Amino acid sequence: MQLFEESSTVGNIVTCKAAVCWEAGVPPVIEQIQVAPPQQGEVRIRMMYSSACHTDCHSMAGLDEYTCFPTILGHEGAGIVESVGEGVTSLAPGDPVVPMYIAECGECGPCIGNKTNMCVKSRAWLCKGVMADGTTRFSCRGKNIGYYMSISAFSQYTVCPEEAVAKVDGATEDDLRRLCLLGCGVPTGYGAVSRVAKVESGSTVAVFGLGCIGLSCIQAAKHAGASRIIAIDLNPGRADLARVMGATEFINPLDHPNKPTQQLLQEATAGGVDYSFECAGGNVNVMRTAIESSHPTQGTCILISLAPSGQQLSLNPMDLLTGRTVRGCIFGGIKGRTDIPHLADDYFKGKLKLDEYVNLEVPLDNINKALMTMSTGKCIRPVIDMR
Amino acid sequence: MQLFEESSTVGNIVTCKAAVCWEAGVPPVIEQIQVAPPQQGEVRIRMMYSSACHTDCHSMAGLDEYTCFPTILGHEGAGIVESVGEGVTSLAPGDPVVPMYIAECGECGPCIGNKTNMCVKSRAWLCKGVMADGTTRFSCRGKNIGYYMSISAFSQYTVCPEEAVAKVDGATEDDLRRLCLLGCGVPTGYGAVSRVAKVESGSTVAVFGLGCIGLSCIQAAKHAGASRIIAIDLNPGRADLARVMGATEFINPLDHPNKPTQQLLQEATAGGVDYSFECAGGNVNVMRTAIESSHPTQGTCILISLAPSGQQLSLNPMDLLTGRTVRGCIFGGIKGRTDIPHLADDYFKGKLKLDEYVNLEVPLDNINKALMTMSTGKCIRPVIDMR
Repeated sequence: MQLFEESSTVGNIVTCKAAVCWEAGVPPVIEQIQVAPPQQGEVRIRMMYSSACHTDCHSMAGLDEYTCFPTILGHEGAGIVESVGEGVTSLAPGDPVVPMYIAECGECGPCIGNKTNMCVKSRAWLCKGVMADGTTRFSCRGKNIGYYMSISAFSQYTVCPEEAVAKVDGATEDDLRRLCLLGCGVPTGYGAVSRVAKVESGSTVAVFGLGCIGLSCIQAAKHAGASRIIAIDLNPGRADLARVMGATEFINPLDHPNKPTQQLLQEATAGGVDYSFECAGGNVNVMRTAIESSHPTQGTCILISLAPSGQQLSLNPMDLLTGRTVRGCIFGGIKGRTDIPHLADDYFKGKLKLDEYVNLEVPLDNINKALMTMSTGKCIRPVIDMR
Repeated sequence: MQLFEESSTVGNIVTCKAAVCWEAGVPPVIEQIQVAPPQQGEVRIRMMYSSACHTDCHSMAGLDEYTCFPTILGHEGAGIVESVGEGVTSLAPGDPVVPMYIAECGECGPCIGNKTNMCVKSRAWLCKGVMADGTTRFSCRGKNIGYYMSISAFSQYTVCPEEAVAKVDGATEDDLRRLCLLGCGVPTGYGAVSRVAKVESGSTVAVFGLGCIGLSCIQAAKHAGASRIIAIDLNPGRADLARVMGATEFINPLDHPNKPTQQLLQEATAGGVDYSFECAGGNVNVMRTAIESSHPTQGTCILISLAPSGQQLSLNPMDLLTGRTVRGCIFGGIKGRTDIPHLADDYFKGKLKLDEYVNLEVPLDNINKALMTMSTGKCIRPVIDMR
């Protein structure tokens, strides 16, 4: 289905709205920006819907070293290809797409192998605020505006590398309202369980932190046939949603002031769970708790949340030596151009829940309401209507 | 071949020599001890040769919480079954054997599965100084003497659980002089590479610490077809032996005072090695170096050395989140009753080097010379003639 008619924008600079973050620690401002046409190997996307992730807030607050201010945040978006640059063969105007911050070129060692999803092509742009040629396609008031995670989903138009755009065939414009969640949170949690940990049927699982990533871990653990899925969060309001996603038990550590959570889990599971997942926002104490909650001789702990710069994770080495595995992953080990279409299919078939994450939708002009509501924990994923 | 003729010892208490450690921090003393007959499911072994491991010294010094003084140290031994207790079916008097501190009962979840070698049977005795029934078979001067790692190889006779004794068919009495090394150090390093990391052909490997475990990692990495095997030690005297075992490069960190070792390795291997192994004695700084030397997105670091109690391993969580895997293991993930006979076969066929580890042999009366020489780094494995 052709969702987007070729228009006068092709080959021209597009002027559109975007939420520009001029400096760290200051909320974004809606501005008119200019978006250059796609260069060789790039595509320009008209963003239809975006969702906000805690990493956007983390970066907005200046808590990482990588964000290149001024910038346009947002890395979960879904849109339609407006035009393509020279040499682009796998995408065409009108294609419904989800841009990704980890490319899948299909040719490098990581793409061909099965050890990591960290496509070497991404290295040219990731965390650098630019495209592969070292420049940005965004400007505002005569100033260059940096990319955020090579996506900048809070702009009505963006330009992305072809290798970093997943095509979601069969998606209608209305589907994109939910498929934007496939840009980060859902695959990050889902993939950590299915691709990185490779949880087996019958396993016991603990998930720390019931945001979008944690809830997606739960969905994947249920699909994998885990026998017990123990959901842990300080917010009792998350228990019901965790159960909807597949959790079999819920623990609020605040209900057990005299017993550390790792001890609760060890006692409940004959020593520790087979797999634990840390998705609570990168608190190093929670990381340690998640590690110690995994079984000492055969447990695996997957670390998912970004930690604030400068924090150190302190461990008793004996807790590893007995046979635990600790592993980190980015984007859930997902190879996006291959895997995101499968996740979209699962959504179309009712096998993957996405609607349940969203209880707030706002127009782009109200993006700060979306970011604030998410930060207070009152919604998992706010969707921003970019149209 | 019948190596041991049934004698009057069967069914009786045996009086023999052993190196008894009366308290932590004090070297062992050669004493006459009494060794009770094997109980149900146990075998009594006449130890022919033992070798010393740094863990014996570590425990002698009182650096772990598990050693039950007074005790008889030693956990690398090879001997001949003297008699068997009720119900023992898989071993008979005369069998050449290597006792193990991790059992392989063949029936529990870990034994049947492929995730860990930590046979649940071992839990009854490991680190407890006793056999499964909670008592010891050793006494001296009227006092009970605790087991060490369920073996106490520095006694001329010991009693072990059937499930924790590997039979090495075809071994002559002289072979046992080297097969004692299969009790700990060699399988611990060899298995960490072949069973736990599962190093693939063409991989890059770094090994920190060139004692028995590290050198065995190198042998296994060579057998796995690793393309580069980088050996690291502060002792330049270990370089030649590392090369004999299969190392392709040697780094002495003292030769590079201005560059951290992880940086040297990152520069030499396009970001980091595929696999790093920490066998340098459990120094938490070396553990961190080994972790940081592995490739950030697809590297694996295997922690092998026991760390002194109370030390904390401090990590930058971002160093894990990018995709590294850190994993510990005990006894190299080896399932001893199955795997030790294969390692012995490899030795008989010249595929596994053992002779090269040994440059000192002493009678039991001189055991303290053996321990001291090993502690100073002047020999990898001293062999103690227990006969």
